[in-house]
Amino acid sequence: MSETTIVASGVREELERIGAQARGAANRMRSLSTSVKNAALLRAAAGFRDSKETLRSANAKDLAAGQEKGLSSALLDRLELTDKRVEEMAKGLEAVAALPDPVGNVESQYVHPNGMRIAQLRQPIGVIGIIYESRPNVTADAASLCLKSGNTCILRGGSEAIHSNLAIAGILIENAMAAGIPEYAVQIIKTTDRAAVGELLKLDKYVDVIVPRGGKGLIARIYEESRIPVVAHLDGNCHTYVDKHADLAMAQRVCLNAKLQRPATCNAMETLLVHGDVAEAFLPVMVTALQLANCEVRGCDRTCRIIACTPATDEDWFTEYLDRILAVKVVDSPEEAIAHINHYGSHHSDAIITESYTTAERFLEEVDSAAVFVNASTRFTDGYEFGLGAEIGISTSKLHCRGPMALRELTTLKYVIRGAGQVRE
Amino acid sequence: MSETTIVASGVREELERIGAQARGAANRMRSLSTSVKNAALLRAAAGFRDSKETLRSANAKDLAAGQEKGLSSALLDRLELTDKRVEEMAKGLEAVAALPDPVGNVESQYVHPNGMRIAQLRQPIGVIGIIYESRPNVTADAASLCLKSGNTCILRGGSEAIHSNLAIAGILIENAMAAGIPEYAVQIIKTTDRAAVGELLKLDKYVDVIVPRGGKGLIARIYEESRIPVVAHLDGNCHTYVDKHADLAMAQRVCLNAKLQRPATCNAMETLLVHGDVAEAFLPVMVTALQLANCEVRGCDRTCRIIACTPATDEDWFTEYLDRILAVKVVDSPEEAIAHINHYGSHHSDAIITESYTTAERFLEEVDSAAVFVNASTRFTDGYEFGLGAEIGISTSKLHCRGPMALRELTTLKYVIRGAGQVRE
Repeated sequence: MSETTIVASGVREELERIGAQARGAANRMRSLSTSVKNAALLRAAAGFRDSKETLRSANAKDLAAGQEKGLSSALLDRLELTDKRVEEMAKGLEAVAALPDPVGNVESQYVHPNGMRIAQLRQPIGVIGIIYESRPNVTADAASLCLKSGNTCILRGGSEAIHSNLAIAGILIENAMAAGIPEYAVQIIKTTDRAAVGELLKLDKYVDVIVPRGGKGLIARIYEESRIPVVAHLDGNCHTYVDKHADLAMAQRVCLNAKLQRPATCNAMETLLVHGDVAEAFLPVMVTALQLANCEVRGCDRTCRIIACTPATDEDWFTEYLDRILAVKVVDSPEEAIAHINHYGSHHSDAIITESYTTAERFLEEVDSAAVFVNASTRFTDGYEFGLGAEIGISTSKLHCRGPMALRELTTLKYVIRGAGQVRE
Repeated sequence: MSETTIVASGVREELERIGAQARGAANRMRSLSTSVKNAALLRAAAGFRDSKETLRSANAKDLAAGQEKGLSSALLDRLELTDKRVEEMAKGLEAVAALPDPVGNVESQYVHPNGMRIAQLRQPIGVIGIIYESRPNVTADAASLCLKSGNTCILRGGSEAIHSNLAIAGILIENAMAAGIPEYAVQIIKTTDRAAVGELLKLDKYVDVIVPRGGKGLIARIYEESRIPVVAHLDGNCHTYVDKHADLAMAQRVCLNAKLQRPATCNAMETLLVHGDVAEAFLPVMVTALQLANCEVRGCDRTCRIIACTPATDEDWFTEYLDRILAVKVVDSPEEAIAHINHYGSHHSDAIITESYTTAERFLEEVDSAAVFVNASTRFTDGYEFGLGAEIGISTSKLHCRGPMALRELTTLKYVIRGAGQVRE
């Protein structure tokens, strides 16, 4: 037996143990009161503020290792836990404590003709597996949302942040337990062995859902390997369609925001569709503004006849650049825009700019995406902006939840039936 | 290349074509009005009534083939399409037409501080794949629920009912299209080649969810093979716990109903748990009644000391008999009963019989099942009994939906944001 096999089998046993512990704790978490959960979050927030030195020294190890490995300065920056970021993490926990607890909410009620009262109540899902990449604050964010929604979680962060993640989880767990949260309600995988992810994805006996946060490569691997249902967003190929009835000044303002306010986010615009009737009036001004902001433009044939730009290929219409690049296509009708979005898009966030009531309504109805906008920037797709408080991710799946996944989306429903001896005829 | 490979590749192309057609039709189905959908259902119901002869002759081919293959009389009975069953199928479509249409319902609304109106609307999921076994009426039931909820469906029935299924689907499609439903909104797989199921389960590009209806073998194979999310119930290992504070006459009535009213259903009781304080008063009378109804009892050690019965093994606590067999265990507390149910059960439907308010509430809270009952028979877990109208299945999954899957559960949510030029700061 090779050494790798031995290691993997040790990892398997460790993950099996973590899974069983999480399931056991889930049974106790289900009936925990909101006060206990909130007290735990507030205590953990205070714990972070009191442990800045511990966190800094754990983080220093990761930063040193990262420098040695030659991580880019962007990645090193994402990895760094400054005092300001620790304070933000503490404030994040306090914000989650302030959110309403969805557990126990009655979603529907029905009285059976035989007198039984039948209600649907919100319940924790149970055990959530979270697999994420470098930013260490995700450890606290994800754990706090699971805790508040009465779920137990198994956290698996990126190896480059392992010391920071373990320190954050340690402080959170210690303070949460002191406030009455059961042991194993929050667990973090301590090994950086890559086999641990594979083993976690096999624990369908214990884990109810996997929520990955990270790049497309990670998400695709998880969808491929997981025996457990996955809720994740795979792609954010978002569009804005500037209709012939658009207010062109508004269109320019909204498009610049959608493309450039944070180009690396999943809700940034990747393709601009413009109606042929306004293309000549709109594109030259728009593209000048984009180019001034160092944004590359790749256009269809008609676009290239109006402005100077790189010709786009079919591949461009499918691409999520996550960068200062924009694909531009001229279309002849709202129908063509809608068909393009439904075919090439990733069903994440898409917008129309128009003053036409009928065209706006049609776009809202026919575009098959998690979020569809009229006269607003796609950048708004976000749990906080949508009034849900913090979010654990954005789902482009159509099952379970679509769009921002927040506290309510971390719950499931349970039928509760109160009878007086009724039997079925 | 072997002949099987050639057949399979023909099947693959056929399924690919069916998938692409379903996705195309889904874009048109999304905005279909309720009136058109209802008219289609009513017209199809009339179509069934007018086609009794066609249906009988198609069904006769299946029955003849079934007899030749030596199907059991129970299976042949399930396969038979009597005039009464055709009438029930027609009435089923009319009942679905009478149900409220969930599409377009506003589930939540929020006004952003910047003035954007953010709503969550119910939308069809898109393309539903339904894989089912012998009963041909499922063809009409499943297609009608998909149609009413604005979804397109791909039906794959059992080979033993192929002629009946094709005839039913043909009548439904012809009448639905005459009423304005787009082509390919309802499709049925015409080949009985087993490879077709495998190919359908790979069409994650086109199919949003697989809903299987059938035995455990089928469901397990689908969970194993599918690249598409599956919503299904795998097991119905249901419990009734008779507490020490139970009204024992009520307990006997409810238990007999839960076990015997239809033993082969997923919501029938499989294990009876009895509190030690009432076991001697309750079990002898209860077991006599069960044995009078030809129900075998398998008991734990303590049960076997009270009544004459087969000793149960650990395997029995995990087993869904779907038959006139009941496992019986004596427990010492509600906690022990709850722990047993959460460990051995399948999280489908579980009941407590008690007059104790505190014990009842605790049971409702701590038992982690799709439906939890106080003083009523587990047999009530059913879309119709729960006030949802018809159901396409019962989900024991915790994601997307839990319990009966009806029209609402065949939809997803879409965020619709109406702005006036807002951009993100």
